[in-house]
Amino acid sequence: MNRSVTAGLRDEVLHANQAIPQARLATLTWGNVSGIDRDAGVYVIKPSGVSYDDLTAEQLVVVDLEDGRVVDGYLRPSVDSETHRRLYLAFGDVGGITHTHSPAAVAFAQAKRDIPVLGTTHADAFNGPIRCTRDLTEAECATDYEYNTGQVIVETFDSVGDDPAEVPGALVANHGPFVWGKDAGASLKNAIICEAVAQMAIQTLALNPHADAPPYLLERHYRRKHGPDAYYGNPQAGQGAQR
Amino acid sequence: MNRSVTAGLRDEVLHANQAIPQARLATLTWGNVSGIDRDAGVYVIKPSGVSYDDLTAEQLVVVDLEDGRVVDGYLRPSVDSETHRRLYLAFGDVGGITHTHSPAAVAFAQAKRDIPVLGTTHADAFNGPIRCTRDLTEAECATDYEYNTGQVIVETFDSVGDDPAEVPGALVANHGPFVWGKDAGASLKNAIICEAVAQMAIQTLALNPHADAPPYLLERHYRRKHGPDAYYGNPQAGQGAQR
Amino acid sequence: MNRSVTAGLRDEVLHANQAIPQARLATLTWGNVSGIDRDAGVYVIKPSGVSYDDLTAEQLVVVDLEDGRVVDGYLRPSVDSETHRRLYLAFGDVGGITHTHSPAAVAFAQAKRDIPVLGTTHADAFNGPIRCTRDLTEAECATDYEYNTGQVIVETFDSVGDDPAEVPGALVANHGPFVWGKDAGASLKNAIICEAVAQMAIQTLALNPHADAPPYLLERHYRRKHGPDAYYGNPQAGQGAQR
Amino acid sequence: MNRSVTAGLRDEVLHANQAIPQARLATLTWGNVSGIDRDAGVYVIKPSGVSYDDLTAEQLVVVDLEDGRVVDGYLRPSVDSETHRRLYLAFGDVGGITHTHSPAAVAFAQAKRDIPVLGTTHADAFNGPIRCTRDLTEAECATDYEYNTGQVIVETFDSVGDDPAEVPGALVANHGPFVWGKDAGASLKNAIICEAVAQMAIQTLALNPHADAPPYLLERHYRRKHGPDAYYGNPQAGQGAQR
Repeated sequence: MNRSVTAGLRDEVLHANQAIPQARLATLTWGNVSGIDRDAGVYVIKPSGVSYDDLTAEQLVVVDLEDGRVVDGYLRPSVDSETHRRLYLAFGDVGGITHTHSPAAVAFAQAKRDIPVLGTTHADAFNGPIRCTRDLTEAECATDYEYNTGQVIVETFDSVGDDPAEVPGALVANHGPFVWGKDAGASLKNAIICEAVAQMAIQTLALNPHADAPPYLLERHYRRKHGPDAYYGNPQAGQGAQR
Repeated sequence: MNRSVTAGLRDEVLHANQAIPQARLATLTWGNVSGIDRDAGVYVIKPSGVSYDDLTAEQLVVVDLEDGRVVDGYLRPSVDSETHRRLYLAFGDVGGITHTHSPAAVAFAQAKRDIPVLGTTHADAFNGPIRCTRDLTEAECATDYEYNTGQVIVETFDSVGDDPAEVPGALVANHGPFVWGKDAGASLKNAIICEAVAQMAIQTLALNPHADAPPYLLERHYRRKHGPDAYYGNPQAGQGAQR
Repeated sequence: MNRSVTAGLRDEVLHANQAIPQARLATLTWGNVSGIDRDAGVYVIKPSGVSYDDLTAEQLVVVDLEDGRVVDGYLRPSVDSETHRRLYLAFGDVGGITHTHSPAAVAFAQAKRDIPVLGTTHADAFNGPIRCTRDLTEAECATDYEYNTGQVIVETFDSVGDDPAEVPGALVANHGPFVWGKDAGASLKNAIICEAVAQMAIQTLALNPHADAPPYLLERHYRRKHGPDAYYGNPQAGQGAQR
Repeated sequence: MNRSVTAGLRDEVLHANQAIPQARLATLTWGNVSGIDRDAGVYVIKPSGVSYDDLTAEQLVVVDLEDGRVVDGYLRPSVDSETHRRLYLAFGDVGGITHTHSPAAVAFAQAKRDIPVLGTTHADAFNGPIRCTRDLTEAECATDYEYNTGQVIVETFDSVGDDPAEVPGALVANHGPFVWGKDAGASLKNAIICEAVAQMAIQTLALNPHADAPPYLLERHYRRKHGPDAYYGNPQAGQGAQR
């Protein structure tokens, strides 16, 4: 099996990482994006401790999906690499993952609250609340901490029955958002939406602590943009995921 | 009847759409502006799913006011086109409409609260609260959803007796602001003001949940800029709508 | 008496007006700065309804301090001109005035609360709370409204005994801040500080509704930068008003 | 002993001061950075009252660590110089200090609350709460005020037993943050983190006034980046302090 990755995937992961500071999702360099080549059984991820400004396609690290070992690259991968790997293993349709410490999403994670679906902005992209995980146990922190960070996300989806394709992200308690999509760029876009709806939710709850929304409205909006009945966008112009 | 529109109208609608991200009213591409030519019986609106950076005057879509069908253009109109159409049909003096998901206005919409008139900033442009509609019913969401989104705005104005020329905008519950004006540019400007006064109102209510303002002060400010007794601006310099 | 003003004063007022959007004190064009030449008995102020980008020194309007009439200029002065005039008449040491609708200061004005002195940031520039006026009466709104807007500020200072040289600004209830200084540039700087301390105060009060500060600390900081015992800055470098 | 400093230290202190406005840590020029040469027994600090834009390496002031007197430079040092000196004397491993009035950190200082450790963002850099000092007494304000400002920070660390190498900063009550690091650049970076975690904490506490985090999670994160067991970063690329 060819364990290298295409230049196209490297470029996509590079550009998504560079977009993190442009989208104001991270202070300093608190965030990382990866993208996967499932045929090759590897994913490409930001190296640990390299600033976005300095980042090059060559510095990206290629990691084996099965065992987490570096198969191409001269730098260490992001310390969060094992969290990405756990998510790729569990969620077979995920093509890219973005992790940031974007402030409003972190506020919900630190408050240990789900981001509730309070309107159509949220429902256009996430078909349900963005869940906050349980705490990791002391044992889970002591050994395989980063892998276990992914594991509590998987466990959260299992316990509530959400579909990771319809709710493409979660908050790790006291940590922050991990958000995914069909590829690296889509995961970044969903991370931007996650932060935007978290900001809106904080302001909404300040105005009305009991705010909620009719489920049929939310479902309507999600289906307007996703699935067989979607009628949003102009596919003939190659544009179907924006308003 | 000539169903095409002038280059001037296309340019105005194009520029107003491009100004949405400049005014920080939208994350990603969550917003759209239209402008109407009432003599021709058509309005010009952003196509669905095209980013502001890529947008060209040729891509704008011309829609028939009476039946909502595209009369000029090779792309689909914004999914919100029918909401714009309902508002143009009901409010005969409206020349342009801006819809965004600007965060503070969305917070009021999600909280299902009107934006109250707490000071002169608001009263300079909106002669009364910016109302939040009732929820749409499940039936209204199931069929003709976007048209019905306009309909609940019209119904709100009917029920409270507001004049859409004096209160040029409303919040759709759990959705966001629809704002209008005498043309596309004026509707964009009113959308900027709507967001600014919503931000101020959130902070005001945090400092004083019972904040209010004397009606005669608000009336004075509105009339200073609007109607026969207005004395704001320098019309001889072609500038009468700014401070 | 020569009723024209020097090019230097025009330039200073022009630059201070242009700095309003740069300092993010105003949405659209909601703000105006003036500067006075007391020997000539006139002040220079922004024309009404001209955007900052288009503003030129020639468009500035020269107004008679005694009767409020335009003595030089082909445009109408800001509608707030009479408020500036009232303040110049009452506060003999004021050389420049800035009025904006900066959002945090407006929030206090709309909440009808003083901006309390909660720390050294505030005390470095304002030796006491930034007061919010009483409401104007219906009669005061009906006749000479703008002049009366200045009058309630003057009345507020009289009633609490504050020195306008030591507390260079006030909030007009349900309206916003009027801030002054020894010249136009200093008034703009104080308007920037007013907004910054209002933002900090909102966040402080959210964390501790009963926040306060020891008066001797505040006095120490004010005197460190103002008056005969000031030891801040490097006057020999022409810089004594920054940190 | 050679009392001059290297061009390298001057440049580092210059660049750290210039980064304050870039990082949006200060309104106007409310902040200053210093760096120390312990072998020479001197530190380099911003002059008082010089704007960041105008600042040059030559204008920086060299101060004697033992007696606080200027040993090189033609301008007066920052009025906060004595606070820096007190911290350098007490905390022998500190190589640089940054003082700002960044708004969220000031809000905690004005509320007289510690910034609590609510998640991994905070724990990655500060191994414990960022403490708020007690009030200075009237006597401490009257004499040697700036030196005493440093003294209450030292006293706070003594009383709670924190290690200034592991918690590189503190809030002075009703004033703002003083933050340090191994050199001037590191102190600036920690000041950026201090502000970011303060912003997150304000939003978190609004969502959950009783928010907290498991100590073993926080410890894990701190040790991931600091001390003998750290495994974050790519030292071979000269980059070990970013994500």
